[in-house]
Amino acid sequence: MKVSPLAPENPPRLPPIAGLRLATMAAGIKYAGRTDLLMMMFDNPAVVAGVFTQSRCPSAPVDWCRRLLHAGEASARAVVVNAGNANAFTGRRGAEATLMTANAASAALGCANNEVFLASTGVIGEPLDASVFGGALQQLAGRGDENGWSDAAEAIMTTDTYPKVSTATADVDGETITVNGIAKGSGMIAPDMATMLAFLATDMPVSRQLLQDLLGELVGGSFNAITVDSDTSTSDTVLLFSTASGNIPVLADKSDQRFDAFKTALGAVLHDLAMQIVRDGEGATKHIEIAVSGAESDESARKIALSIANSPLVKTAVAGEDANWGRVVMAVGKAGEPADRDKLSITFGDVRVAVHGERDPDYVEETASEVMRKQDIRIGVDVGVGIGESRVWSCDLTKEYVAINGDYRS
Amino acid sequence: MKVSPLAPENPPRLPPIAGLRLATMAAGIKYAGRTDLLMMMFDNPAVVAGVFTQSRCPSAPVDWCRRLLHAGEASARAVVVNAGNANAFTGRRGAEATLMTANAASAALGCANNEVFLASTGVIGEPLDASVFGGALQQLAGRGDENGWSDAAEAIMTTDTYPKVSTATADVDGETITVNGIAKGSGMIAPDMATMLAFLATDMPVSRQLLQDLLGELVGGSFNAITVDSDTSTSDTVLLFSTASGNIPVLADKSDQRFDAFKTALGAVLHDLAMQIVRDGEGATKHIEIAVSGAESDESARKIALSIANSPLVKTAVAGEDANWGRVVMAVGKAGEPADRDKLSITFGDVRVAVHGERDPDYVEETASEVMRKQDIRIGVDVGVGIGESRVWSCDLTKEYVAINGDYRS
Repeated sequence: MKVSPLAPENPPRLPPIAGLRLATMAAGIKYAGRTDLLMMMFDNPAVVAGVFTQSRCPSAPVDWCRRLLHAGEASARAVVVNAGNANAFTGRRGAEATLMTANAASAALGCANNEVFLASTGVIGEPLDASVFGGALQQLAGRGDENGWSDAAEAIMTTDTYPKVSTATADVDGETITVNGIAKGSGMIAPDMATMLAFLATDMPVSRQLLQDLLGELVGGSFNAITVDSDTSTSDTVLLFSTASGNIPVLADKSDQRFDAFKTALGAVLHDLAMQIVRDGEGATKHIEIAVSGAESDESARKIALSIANSPLVKTAVAGEDANWGRVVMAVGKAGEPADRDKLSITFGDVRVAVHGERDPDYVEETASEVMRKQDIRIGVDVGVGIGESRVWSCDLTKEYVAINGDYRS
Repeated sequence: MKVSPLAPENPPRLPPIAGLRLATMAAGIKYAGRTDLLMMMFDNPAVVAGVFTQSRCPSAPVDWCRRLLHAGEASARAVVVNAGNANAFTGRRGAEATLMTANAASAALGCANNEVFLASTGVIGEPLDASVFGGALQQLAGRGDENGWSDAAEAIMTTDTYPKVSTATADVDGETITVNGIAKGSGMIAPDMATMLAFLATDMPVSRQLLQDLLGELVGGSFNAITVDSDTSTSDTVLLFSTASGNIPVLADKSDQRFDAFKTALGAVLHDLAMQIVRDGEGATKHIEIAVSGAESDESARKIALSIANSPLVKTAVAGEDANWGRVVMAVGKAGEPADRDKLSITFGDVRVAVHGERDPDYVEETASEVMRKQDIRIGVDVGVGIGESRVWSCDLTKEYVAINGDYRS
């Protein structure tokens, strides 16, 4: 699999988060010759927050994590993630596989099974044989590594062409705290979800409620603002852990003067990982930002932006480097949201192609074509009815997407 | 352009409808060496019904037709259709072009300009120069032909690979009446619309109100139940004319004993044309029928069916002849409608691949693969919560779709 042309050139090396170790191995779930099993381990119980797919047919691991989080007093000692099999639509046996996996991890680590979070990604509908995990997790427990972040990001890939890692620091009262994150995802990526899978950790101590509130707020403009193909996964999971192992007082309130610095660092990692996922969209050759303004409300702007982002005709036009604003008009029109056709304006990059509901009188095809030849394309749309705005990110639709997905399962 | 492998083998020859003549010519709007202008002419004012795109950015001809129909006492003496330019998102000049076209037709035929219906299809956002229509329509007025239906279907094509014609007859009180129809459409095809363009006529005299009611009802299960790429056009238009030129008493009431026979004939033509459009979906190699049952309501079943029909991952799997029911589960899940994951069952053709929320114990890969190699694929889904049901039709997503749309405008 060729690496996406949009891959980051210099991925960062993630620093350790004290008390958090990672280990991977090749468990042979589906792929040959690569790692496919990850265990993240916490020396002390970590505070945990999570957001999950809105699918009505969630995977068994999503059911499992939701149940732990809803119990209220959840804390984490481990996360077990496998690639190659999503353990989704696997019925009663799927639930049994999650219990067996959590039991294996709790035996290996000497913790309770409700301190073990789970995620699976890969093919849907095939039973997952969790019996292999017993011995495997025992081995992983013995070789956790604080520097295992890159290996971890590799072990959870499916059709991804590069591992996705991100890190940020913040200065809180003279102490430097870190936020690390890894993610995977390339196809079956659409909003109304978390993402495929992302795992973040920070050594900033944060209360459970605030951690959950922050994650919920920040996914709105990051993972929930991207789309590769409008298809929402059964397995989307974002988990955020606070190891709380230092001497820094717990952050529990938005009025805390340290809140902004932490939020900025966390937001940066979430945004970076989300962009990396869309830049690794299956078959992608272009990264598209869609900025809608002048809508009736922010929510209305978001619907219009997603209508543009998910339109196969807009995405194929971008693939063909065609400044086809007519298809943008079509996508605005089909969104069903208030828009004034005769006040609509559209820009590609810095080039205004349409204004007052028709082609810009100063429009020059060659100038627009120049913008379309770039790797990063910004489509701006003002729909002329209000002050609502929204930004979402997507990628183009190429023959490679069809090739990748025309023969994935077999 | 290669003809779709799903094209009908023996298109019917459409019989005349008394008092209705058609003429076409190459007006050079965009294409070279082919016809692109059609005028349908009625000797006597025809009763007319219409349904149009729900786009918030409708084309100027859609605005024009809607205004005529909303005026209440609309009747038709002509329909002028051009291919190559949609006259959409063309501002004030777009409205002027419709007026100029209607004036030219009314001058050529000696009727009022509000008896001239209009439709345009092709590129969006380019001004349409209607000045060429003056002389052209004058010529067409002189050479209307009752047998011009096939030529008419050809003149309105854009990326279509074959002309779409359909006809049906009904026996009403010993008299044979006819319903003829033509349509075009291949990409930018999605529900919540009429379709790209379809024009039907019958010699059955029908009252205006009943004609409109019938058309509105029947598009629900035909044109509004198909999708090629989830993209809704700015120009979708279905117009149905009743020439009312014979001695048959006007049909004005559903309790009329002739109603069922007429409705059946009209429904057959609408369904046939809708299927021809989806079978000519850009790049299509497979025709997919999706039948959802066991939903909370028919409307809920329809949303689930469309979620499956519009999923790029389901469509690429069908293109790859892969019986990937996991993606069907995904599409059910993302629809957001009530569904019981653990009661879900899925069939491909006659093969039950999943039952009670997991793979059918009797599932044999080879049997399902055999179904997938056929040209016509039926996907059945029972979501296990009620008695709502719905059927929609779609096609697969292939590299050809991307090729066709990656370079359409330039």
